[in-house]
Amino acid sequence: MDAEAVVDVSGEKSFSSQLRSWQQRMEEALAARLPAAELVPERLHAAMRYAVLGGGKRVRPVLLFATARTLGLTERHVEGAACAVELIHAYSLVHDDLPAMDNDDLRRGKPTCHRAYDEATAVLVGDALQPLAFELLARDVALPADAGIRLRLIEMLAQASGSLGMAGGQAIDLAAKGRRLAVSEVEAMHERKTGALIRASVMMAAACVPRLSEDAQTALERYARAVGLAFQIKDDVLDATGDVATLGKAVGADVRQARSTYAVLSGVGAARERMQRLHEQAHEALEQFGTAAEPLWAVSTWLLARRN
Amino acid sequence: MDAEAVVDVSGEKSFSSQLRSWQQRMEEALAARLPAAELVPERLHAAMRYAVLGGGKRVRPVLLFATARTLGLTERHVEGAACAVELIHAYSLVHDDLPAMDNDDLRRGKPTCHRAYDEATAVLVGDALQPLAFELLARDVALPADAGIRLRLIEMLAQASGSLGMAGGQAIDLAAKGRRLAVSEVEAMHERKTGALIRASVMMAAACVPRLSEDAQTALERYARAVGLAFQIKDDVLDATGDVATLGKAVGADVRQARSTYAVLSGVGAARERMQRLHEQAHEALEQFGTAAEPLWAVSTWLLARRN
Repeated sequence: MDAEAVVDVSGEKSFSSQLRSWQQRMEEALAARLPAAELVPERLHAAMRYAVLGGGKRVRPVLLFATARTLGLTERHVEGAACAVELIHAYSLVHDDLPAMDNDDLRRGKPTCHRAYDEATAVLVGDALQPLAFELLARDVALPADAGIRLRLIEMLAQASGSLGMAGGQAIDLAAKGRRLAVSEVEAMHERKTGALIRASVMMAAACVPRLSEDAQTALERYARAVGLAFQIKDDVLDATGDVATLGKAVGADVRQARSTYAVLSGVGAARERMQRLHEQAHEALEQFGTAAEPLWAVSTWLLARRN
Repeated sequence: MDAEAVVDVSGEKSFSSQLRSWQQRMEEALAARLPAAELVPERLHAAMRYAVLGGGKRVRPVLLFATARTLGLTERHVEGAACAVELIHAYSLVHDDLPAMDNDDLRRGKPTCHRAYDEATAVLVGDALQPLAFELLARDVALPADAGIRLRLIEMLAQASGSLGMAGGQAIDLAAKGRRLAVSEVEAMHERKTGALIRASVMMAAACVPRLSEDAQTALERYARAVGLAFQIKDDVLDATGDVATLGKAVGADVRQARSTYAVLSGVGAARERMQRLHEQAHEALEQFGTAAEPLWAVSTWLLARRN
C-alpha cells in the first residue's frame, strides 16, 4: 500500500491520487487506533470517533508523509506520528467550536461535536484525545523504535500544542476579538495557532531520520513556516469569499466577529499576493533536496489551490 | 477503630512535618516549571499558575514521594513525574468545574478558574496543562535519564488520564447523574475517575526503579487500589458531613445533584467502615517492604484522617 510509485508531481493528476491514498490511509490508521465505540464509556468513545473520523483534509498527516518521502522514509516510519498530530488537531477543533470559544455549529459539513453530542462530552472528547496522541508516540509500532527519537517527538508535539504553541495562539486570538490588530500581530498569532502544529508535522517527520543535517533541518523549517502562514491566509480568504456548501462550515464569521485577518485587514487581493510569495519561498527552501522534494512542493501547491 | 490511633504520636508528628516539606517542595517545583505570568499570552499563563499553585493537598505527588522513599529512591528521582501527575490532576479540576460539567464556583477556597478568569480561558488552561505534563516526562532533569523508563512513564500517565482512565471516569460520572447506581457501579466509576491517577502516581514512582520485582509491583498496585478507593469514599463522606469553610468547596452537592456516592447509597456509617477495611488492606499489601514502607502507610493514615 505504501509502495506506490514515486509521484511525478509535475502531473497534477498523479499527486491527487497520491493525496487520496494518503487520506484513505489516515482514515484507516486513525480508526484502528481510536477506542471502539462499543467500549465503556460508549458515548465518549463514539464522540471521539465522530470528531476524528469521516472527513478532513488531513493536511498535517499529508505534510508528515510528504516530508518522509522527501527524506527517503516510507509512510510506515511516520504513521504513528501522523496519527498523533491529527488527534491533537482534531481535539483543538472540538474545543475551538465550543460555545465558550467560537460557538460554531458546523464543521466539515456536519454538526460540531457539542451539537451532535453535548457540551460536557465535547470537553471530554478533547481531553481524552490529547493523552491518546502522546500514548501513540510512546508506543505505536509505526514509528522508529529508538526511544530517544520518540522522546524528541513527544517534546516537539507537546511544545507545538501547549501554551507557547497552538493553545497559546488560540488564547491570543480570543483576546484579540473585536480589537484591530496590525498585520504583524496577526502573523504572530497565526504562527502559534496553526503554524506551530504545521511546523511540527514537517519537523517530526524530519526527527525520524537519525543524524539529519542542520542544513536540511533549517530548509524544512523555512518551508514549513512559509506553508503554515500561507495555509492560514488561505483560510482567511476562503472565509471571506467561499460558500458554506464548499467549506462545510460557516463563512463570513471573521468579518461578523470583527476578527483581524489578512483578508479583513489587507483585502483579498493583497492576501492572495502574500500567499503567492510564501508559496515561492516554500519552493526555494526545498532547492537543496532537488526532485526528491517534489511531494512537499506538490503539497504547497495543493494547499494554495484548495477550495475548502 | 480510629485510624489516627494506629500511628504513634512521635511518628505522626514526624510525618506531618515530612508532609509539609513535600507540599512545599511541590509548590516550588511546579512554580519553576509553569510558564512565567509575564510571558505572552499573559492571561493564559497567569490562569495556568492560578489553577495549579497556592494550595491543594498534593496527594498524588505525596504518593510518588512516599513510594520513592519506600523503594530507596530520593524525591529528586521522581520530582518531574510528580509535577506531571499534579498538572494532569489540576487540569482535570479546571475542566470538571466548568459550567457544562459540574458548574462549581469554589475550589480550594478560591473562585474556580472560569470564575476568576473566564470560561474560554479555563478551557485553554486545561488544554495547555496537559502537553506541559507530557513535556516534563520527556525532558525534565529530575527523572531517571533512561529513555525507556521515560517512555513507560508517558504511556502510564497517558493511559491513566485518557478515555479508559480519568476522562472516561468523568464521562461515566456525568452519564450517571440523576440515576441511582449500584455500589459496584460507583466503585467501577471511581476506579477510573480518581483511582487511575492515584494508581499511576504509585506505579510511576515504581517504574523509576529498574528491574523492580513483579511481587513488589503487585503489592504496590494492591496498596494503590485500596488507597484510591478509600480516598474517594472519604471525599463522599466529607461532602455529606463537612462544612464549606474547612473543605474550600461547596458541600452537599452530591445529595442535591442526586449523585450516587457511597455516603448517599450506603450511609455515612457504612462508608466509614468500608474505608477502614480498605485502609487495613493497604497496610497488609505493604508487609513485604517491612519498615521501609512506613511513608506509604503514613500517607494512607493521613488520607483517612483528613478533614478536607
